[in-house]
Amino acid sequence: MELVGVDLEERSYEIKIGAGLLANLGQSLIDLDIKAGTKILIITDKRVNDLYGSEINQRLEETDFEFKIIVVPEGEKSKSLNMTKVLYDEAVDFGLDRSSLIIAFGGGVIGDLAGFIAATYMRGVPFIQIPTTLLAQVDSSVGGKTAVNHEAGKNLIGAFYQPELVLIDLEVLNTLDQRDVRSGLAEVIKYGVIWDKEFFNYLQANHKEIKELDLDVLAKVIQRSCQIKAEVVAKDEKELGLRAILNYGHTIGHAIEALAGYGEYRHGEAVAIGMISAMELAYKLDMVTKEEVEAQTELINNFGLPTTINKLRLDQIISKTKQDKKVKDGEVNFILPNSIGEVEIVSGVKNEVLTEVLAKQLR
Amino acid sequence: MELVGVDLEERSYEIKIGAGLLANLGQSLIDLDIKAGTKILIITDKRVNDLYGSEINQRLEETDFEFKIIVVPEGEKSKSLNMTKVLYDEAVDFGLDRSSLIIAFGGGVIGDLAGFIAATYMRGVPFIQIPTTLLAQVDSSVGGKTAVNHEAGKNLIGAFYQPELVLIDLEVLNTLDQRDVRSGLAEVIKYGVIWDKEFFNYLQANHKEIKELDLDVLAKVIQRSCQIKAEVVAKDEKELGLRAILNYGHTIGHAIEALAGYGEYRHGEAVAIGMISAMELAYKLDMVTKEEVEAQTELINNFGLPTTINKLRLDQIISKTKQDKKVKDGEVNFILPNSIGEVEIVSGVKNEVLTEVLAKQLR
Repeated sequence: MELVGVDLEERSYEIKIGAGLLANLGQSLIDLDIKAGTKILIITDKRVNDLYGSEINQRLEETDFEFKIIVVPEGEKSKSLNMTKVLYDEAVDFGLDRSSLIIAFGGGVIGDLAGFIAATYMRGVPFIQIPTTLLAQVDSSVGGKTAVNHEAGKNLIGAFYQPELVLIDLEVLNTLDQRDVRSGLAEVIKYGVIWDKEFFNYLQANHKEIKELDLDVLAKVIQRSCQIKAEVVAKDEKELGLRAILNYGHTIGHAIEALAGYGEYRHGEAVAIGMISAMELAYKLDMVTKEEVEAQTELINNFGLPTTINKLRLDQIISKTKQDKKVKDGEVNFILPNSIGEVEIVSGVKNEVLTEVLAKQLR
Repeated sequence: MELVGVDLEERSYEIKIGAGLLANLGQSLIDLDIKAGTKILIITDKRVNDLYGSEINQRLEETDFEFKIIVVPEGEKSKSLNMTKVLYDEAVDFGLDRSSLIIAFGGGVIGDLAGFIAATYMRGVPFIQIPTTLLAQVDSSVGGKTAVNHEAGKNLIGAFYQPELVLIDLEVLNTLDQRDVRSGLAEVIKYGVIWDKEFFNYLQANHKEIKELDLDVLAKVIQRSCQIKAEVVAKDEKELGLRAILNYGHTIGHAIEALAGYGEYRHGEAVAIGMISAMELAYKLDMVTKEEVEAQTELINNFGLPTTINKLRLDQIISKTKQDKKVKDGEVNFILPNSIGEVEIVSGVKNEVLTEVLAKQLR
């Protein structure tokens, strides 16, 4: 088992990474000093419940905890204010209190939704993330961002709220479809580009093993991704500055995701497209070389991720980027590479340059 | 002008107390380094807007800020999930972002509601509290608790989120009705009982001046109340231990408020009744003397606050206390005085004792 620490003073916690951790869930809870009799509300979705509901049920029945599993529909639509109301009601019915525990058991949607409930029910209940997609394992389960969506934008309503533990069981990756694995790999590429050239090269050198879900290689990939995210978050928990670099590829990515309708593109697919745009912007601004642009494109291609935008209009995309919640004082900031392994925040990117870059990606 | 610091590391802020501060709102914002052009969303209620809306409007029109005033209906009913939806929509329409500012301008309901919006819109927007009731000035505006209600309990959904500034203009007290002033005084008495015998004696010695709204005396009373609250909150921001003492009188108080229907009793009236119950419980448990019981009752009477419970059933009250969100592991904790000026958290109070005490208060 690998451990990654997230260093946030009294809000510090550990990420456990290993194969088969789910089977030892009871022990992990005891290690956290969760007392016998504690009420545990597990929030999951239909797909994850079909796959693992009975195992979780069995593992927790062996313990002295009192638990309840709530199953919400799959997909981004469950990240709504309406669903928070349903979950608050369920928490009340179950008699959840501040000494209880919430477990987010699923992908990014479940982590964000359950995390937001944990952040706001009785002004905060301890919670644990058990991410079941690669995307959630390397990204959304780490760092304490929780949220639901609003018609006007993804994650528009939320809170910073840290979990007590993140439990990453590598074996769940075997039940993901290829497209979901690829979606997670987009964020993995991101960590290489924003922070660690050596890691980027490792991904390129091992792209076959990664795509074939070699668990030893994946353990390393997930561990390094979590380490990078944890380092960035520890330096800037509330996204006042540095943390924004984690949004590399996300400004355009979010716009595309929202315009196409959440679910049309997987999150990672939209981010891959956004990273292509950002790298190209950086090239136009003389920040990176042609070789660096090509290296990123090659890795994105090797992982089978998309690079072009279908069925959307240029003006729509540009106007949507201006609604991004990272917009400050009306100005869109882009995270652009200086080289593979280092990015900076660039403001005042001209509309013409952005138009030129996006036009090349439109199909 | 009096200043009270709330010491919470990077979340520290000041409470400004004085007569006429509202007229200098623009300067207070500039002192906080709020930049020209910043969008400011002011959330208030009908009563406050009728009284001060045009003044605020005028003061802010003299500045370079872009502002919008949202008026919600008066009363506890506005502290709902439905109202949060309305306010999120308004914030989106106004183009609010993370560099904007929210001002909570009103009593406790507005502070809790607007604070919750500030805590959760885009995972947090800076906000300022301008409390316009004595209750909000001495209690709810200080300490970062924000919340809305759920059918199952008051403040069941919320967050800890600190303001950038609390601005207390003493002049607004002149427009409060007597009953609202009294409601605030209950929390003031609470600070004396839980923390400061000398302050308790000061209140007793000056009860006439206080009731007559002598602004010099009130400035001292509000300052000391805020100081005590700030001290307690600084030691335990997230209510893991000590902060619970601020709930003295609130376990029974909240139950009565909820059962009678929010609005039937003013919050402070219910707390006054709850403090009578708590002191009597402490007496039954040999924690305080008969003289101390009588001293508190006398002060509560002097401020014209109620001590008895009308139209409710004993079993209802007892079962309601068990739903309080401070309940841990199903056990109701009471905050009980050891003497005037010191309290402790007592668990395992027997139902018979509680029944006996409440039976004496029922009318």
